[in-house]
Amino acid sequence: MISREQIIYLDNNATTQLDPAVIEEMLPYLTDYYGNPSSGYAFGAQVRRAIDLARERVAALLGCEPGEIVFTSCGTEANNAALNSALQLDPARQHIVTTAVEHSATFRHCEVLSKRGCLVTTVGVDGEGNLDLEELESALTPQTAIISAMWANNETGVLFPVEKIAEIARRKRVLFHTDAIQAAGKIPIRLANSTINSLSLSAHKLHGPKGVGALYVNKRSAFRPSLLGGSQENNRRAGTENVASIVALGKAAECAMAALEDEETRVRALRDRFETSVLERVPGSSVNGGRAARLPNTTNFSFAGIQSDAALMMLDRERICCSAGSACRTGAIESSRVLRAMKLSDEGARGSMRFSFSRFNTEAEVDKAVEILAQVIAKLRALSPAARMPEAAAV
Amino acid sequence: MISREQIIYLDNNATTQLDPAVIEEMLPYLTDYYGNPSSGYAFGAQVRRAIDLARERVAALLGCEPGEIVFTSCGTEANNAALNSALQLDPARQHIVTTAVEHSATFRHCEVLSKRGCLVTTVGVDGEGNLDLEELESALTPQTAIISAMWANNETGVLFPVEKIAEIARRKRVLFHTDAIQAAGKIPIRLANSTINSLSLSAHKLHGPKGVGALYVNKRSAFRPSLLGGSQENNRRAGTENVASIVALGKAAECAMAALEDEETRVRALRDRFETSVLERVPGSSVNGGRAARLPNTTNFSFAGIQSDAALMMLDRERICCSAGSACRTGAIESSRVLRAMKLSDEGARGSMRFSFSRFNTEAEVDKAVEILAQVIAKLRALSPAARMPEAAAV
Repeated sequence: MISREQIIYLDNNATTQLDPAVIEEMLPYLTDYYGNPSSGYAFGAQVRRAIDLARERVAALLGCEPGEIVFTSCGTEANNAALNSALQLDPARQHIVTTAVEHSATFRHCEVLSKRGCLVTTVGVDGEGNLDLEELESALTPQTAIISAMWANNETGVLFPVEKIAEIARRKRVLFHTDAIQAAGKIPIRLANSTINSLSLSAHKLHGPKGVGALYVNKRSAFRPSLLGGSQENNRRAGTENVASIVALGKAAECAMAALEDEETRVRALRDRFETSVLERVPGSSVNGGRAARLPNTTNFSFAGIQSDAALMMLDRERICCSAGSACRTGAIESSRVLRAMKLSDEGARGSMRFSFSRFNTEAEVDKAVEILAQVIAKLRALSPAARMPEAAAV
Repeated sequence: MISREQIIYLDNNATTQLDPAVIEEMLPYLTDYYGNPSSGYAFGAQVRRAIDLARERVAALLGCEPGEIVFTSCGTEANNAALNSALQLDPARQHIVTTAVEHSATFRHCEVLSKRGCLVTTVGVDGEGNLDLEELESALTPQTAIISAMWANNETGVLFPVEKIAEIARRKRVLFHTDAIQAAGKIPIRLANSTINSLSLSAHKLHGPKGVGALYVNKRSAFRPSLLGGSQENNRRAGTENVASIVALGKAAECAMAALEDEETRVRALRDRFETSVLERVPGSSVNGGRAARLPNTTNFSFAGIQSDAALMMLDRERICCSAGSACRTGAIESSRVLRAMKLSDEGARGSMRFSFSRFNTEAEVDKAVEILAQVIAKLRALSPAARMPEAAAV
């Protein structure tokens, strides 16, 4: 088995290592305090209180009220539930407006909903990954149930102006859901005075465990649950609570809140150091979405004349973890849907790689990764005649 | 905080303590091997292999093929998904046949589906909790999509003849889903030659963690996923895998398989010792479903003239954990729906308590619990004039 000490992990948008403080907080709920939070006795009630505390901590990260947090099993469930709820609320409103660059948890869900008779309008983005708000607004009709647009793109880190979208949605009396799975814990989120109706996050993107997420549902917004059964989560999500992981998410949210400043300064500096060095060292390299407002931790490169799959394999041998597009499409033959929506050439999309950093990365790791990456790209170009003149083939 | 060493835990149908071997197996996936199983590099692929092993272990517990296992976030999700899939498969079949004693993960789901236009037929049970198979069969129509009937009842432990139901379903060309959340790990399950189409289980009922379950889907049965997004679980359940908990479920399944004989002998002996002692020591006590085929670990008592809520509170003070009905209905004012379906008087249902045992219980715990329970019932009867003559008020 490959241990975390053996790798340089630059794929923090795929998943993150757990913060040791998170593991410490969740462990007693695996070993000792195993009561069912719905049980009436004290051994169960104490677990209920631990969930309450986690809810407060997640609410603090989002600047909302604890009662507005519904724990889910992952970000995908949260995104799916928000759209399902909107469609359930009004049979006369079966139209969804979304964007071309959403994560598959929204994009693929919309594709299937569309096959089931729901109307879906997909708004495009420009070459930097920015949304056209006028196009978005003009897509809305009296039948529109909900707008679903991500806060931060998982592949490029490009940020959508969610408060402006929320304002359009409010004005047009349409619900607005934002997938904040990549944004939460990386940039400040204050929902207290927002008209965003719902927002999703995932623990494993912010140094918590896989298998737990949260859906914020604004207290003034109606909600219809997707999972039905027991009355857990105030009747908004049935099923015995994933106690240890919820406790972990609470702690991860608290840690992320404390590290927000660090994310904006030190993590951003690591990303910028990486980006600048690669642009300097590797000819024919360019940053996708580099002129847009972006997450501080993400960079997405295109390397002219390169197949990213081959590069990833060589980087893997050097124990450097990064990715092409999202982890969820690994194995897929086609190039990134997100980058194609940004009008990248197929070649540019195929030669693209994402590097995403976290507070657990170091400058030494960045420098070593740049060094190895430059060698890998040079080797691949030496092997492929078509790529020998990267300047000529530059994206 | 109350530690597990301070309690006598006789509520193993609500949840169970994690087997230490399970915690040991899952921990490295929280601390060290945090890669995303969908990632292409070796640090991710090794996690994928751990999930494969877990799938094999769960398949071994069920006597089915690994490819027939879909990991879910809980038993509720598995039950919901089975019914949702059946309804998606054929728009002309929107009829569900289920029973009056299902867990709320099915019962409540069916209530909501019914409000959304789906037809639901609920088949009743007799005084011992047994299903009338003729009534079940006569409820089937050409519009019936699926039969959903539990393997073992969570409140009484009563077993349904699932293979007979599967045979009826096969003959009538209707799907059959069984909620085996209480059965899995307690009694042998061999699906290899079964015509059961789908079956659900939950890790935290068999000494695994909360927040993970599995849905068996027979390889010859079509399935439409409820969660949409990434291609995880062979396109049957989107969302980044709950790796550590899936690994834990695998280990819990392996441990449960090894302990099946113990469950049938030692756990059954503990339950029988408890049952016999209580019937001897407490006048006006009776076992609900006591003459039916039952799980080896469960007993459900009615105590004449007693309000179970008061008894539970007094037992809690003595650190004995047990319950009235399922944990999921705690706080509900009404008496058990399951016991009312068994034609118990309202008084009998209100005076009912469930005690459920596991391989971690001891004879000493059983004897102490009987002693305290007898005192508690006697005290309560002394306080309530109506209950002073339990023989006269016997259920």
